[in-house]
Amino acid sequence: MQPLVLTMGEPAGIGGEIALAAWSRRASGVPPFALIDNPARLAALAKSLRIDLKIREIDEPSTVGAVWRDALPVLPIALSAPVVAGRPDLRNSEAVIHAIRHAAKLVLDGSASGMVTNPIQKQVLVEAGFKYPGHTEFLAELAGPGSKPVMMLACPGLRVVPVTVHLSLRDAIASLDVNRIVTAGRITNAALQRDFSIKRPRLAVAGLNPHAGEGGLFGREEIEIIQPALQILRDEGLRITGPLPPDTMFHTTARAGYDAALCMYHDQALIPLKTIDFERGVNITLGLPFVRTSPDHGTALGIAGTGRASAESLIAALATAAQMARARLEEAA
Amino acid sequence: MQPLVLTMGEPAGIGGEIALAAWSRRASGVPPFALIDNPARLAALAKSLRIDLKIREIDEPSTVGAVWRDALPVLPIALSAPVVAGRPDLRNSEAVIHAIRHAAKLVLDGSASGMVTNPIQKQVLVEAGFKYPGHTEFLAELAGPGSKPVMMLACPGLRVVPVTVHLSLRDAIASLDVNRIVTAGRITNAALQRDFSIKRPRLAVAGLNPHAGEGGLFGREEIEIIQPALQILRDEGLRITGPLPPDTMFHTTARAGYDAALCMYHDQALIPLKTIDFERGVNITLGLPFVRTSPDHGTALGIAGTGRASAESLIAALATAAQMARARLEEAA
Repeated sequence: MQPLVLTMGEPAGIGGEIALAAWSRRASGVPPFALIDNPARLAALAKSLRIDLKIREIDEPSTVGAVWRDALPVLPIALSAPVVAGRPDLRNSEAVIHAIRHAAKLVLDGSASGMVTNPIQKQVLVEAGFKYPGHTEFLAELAGPGSKPVMMLACPGLRVVPVTVHLSLRDAIASLDVNRIVTAGRITNAALQRDFSIKRPRLAVAGLNPHAGEGGLFGREEIEIIQPALQILRDEGLRITGPLPPDTMFHTTARAGYDAALCMYHDQALIPLKTIDFERGVNITLGLPFVRTSPDHGTALGIAGTGRASAESLIAALATAAQMARARLEEAA
Repeated sequence: MQPLVLTMGEPAGIGGEIALAAWSRRASGVPPFALIDNPARLAALAKSLRIDLKIREIDEPSTVGAVWRDALPVLPIALSAPVVAGRPDLRNSEAVIHAIRHAAKLVLDGSASGMVTNPIQKQVLVEAGFKYPGHTEFLAELAGPGSKPVMMLACPGLRVVPVTVHLSLRDAIASLDVNRIVTAGRITNAALQRDFSIKRPRLAVAGLNPHAGEGGLFGREEIEIIQPALQILRDEGLRITGPLPPDTMFHTTARAGYDAALCMYHDQALIPLKTIDFERGVNITLGLPFVRTSPDHGTALGIAGTGRASAESLIAALATAAQMARARLEEAA
């Protein structure tokens, strides 16, 4: 299997130090990756954090295997301004974007088996002319027409897919429709089969309202939108339960009954996930032609450069990407 | 301290059997209570479940202490129809309501230190002319003018107060206003002091929208409603953090930073609570002149009479009521 590729992300954030930490823990099974980043700034960062490591510039991911044990393999990129921890610099935006573009190229041409993205700082990219709401939309465009990205978040014991994401709760309710739920259900089902080797995935679907509306007493979205969507999915052969009362579907016993939960809004998915396992949440983009995961946190500018950031989520993102890549290979074989 | 009083609830539900189970576990510290129920039907239920226990009819709660070790003390009420597990009978509605009324009388006149209510079946009570959305509103009326009931849910490690409750999510958003949040904050703060002996309670307040709106990007309720409400509460001297991103405030480390979380809607409060501890959730009504708790589940008609229902939540409700009653006594002393 080809190695993974990891992007730099915002260099003023914690991406660099968690990447160094992940490589340092390679003996515990962190899957091999090539980091797209600036070697000089990484060396300076390692020195300031007193991390003893070698950095090896490489030309292509195929050499990762030979280098991995002794040095962190880096696909080098240039920066336009010195990196100051905690202070994103507009001048480095192009490098941030280039790293993502380069990673996408490597997974699309098959020289990397999956990509993991370090967090970016949206505002500074937007100032520099970046016109996407985030990584996901940018990657969907790089992936080409027909890709319908769907966000999944996973931790040990729970996978959730929010049908609506970065919208006010009011707008999330307004934008809920049969089509969105059907699309998310289909893509989730296909991804569980292909990327997680689950032959007949069990999907649990949350209601929108308290008690899933209690028969229309507390809202009619379950009756008018969710049930019709689930009927379409059931008619296609998917194994679906729901719409379920949202508050009783995330305890340990309930979770044992499904492979992924389809949620109607951001916090319905994220509250249980981050309550159960705050450190090891992984963000997975389904519906792309390649494997893509990311740690489920931001740039953490406030603690960048201190070495205090936890690498747990990045390591989980790398492990998940490797697992998905392996499942795709096995399915293709 | 006076004993607690426990209502019958819907006799066709699981209330009777979990009450018997709670008394059976009195050696493990279940606080003494008088059960308002029908002695004959309890005896028949115990027999059918092969629970070996004596039932002692009593006239008033003051005799609970003398009886408790040897028999389940019951304040008797009459039923108008035979109880069939799983099938609520309209003719018994009056007895269900009478039990609640009687319990309220006993806590109001001081002969019981707190009341715990077994679950009722709303539809059948409504058919019988009961005009309240639930226990809470009925108790507020029995308590007299000026009582502003606020629902708190608690499990070991988390207390949550939803500012809006049994409304569709759409209506919950529409009904959110400064006044509701301020009232809930004041009542929660006062109750934490009086009923939980916390001198300077720390309240964490959730935002409504993902990422608490991210500065207005995903909704303006944080800016226009929640922040102004919190300013009023802070000006009154309350210790408040928020509005917080809802998804990152319920993991173990975050929960250690506050005594109660004020939530904007039902599932924002109930999802984390039931995810953390599905069995031992307790429903507490703050803002009443007396102590009232209840198990955080319904009548469970589907398993009533089988003995399969867990008594954990009822036992937790009894323990919480006793703890609150003791705190009130100590504060009064």
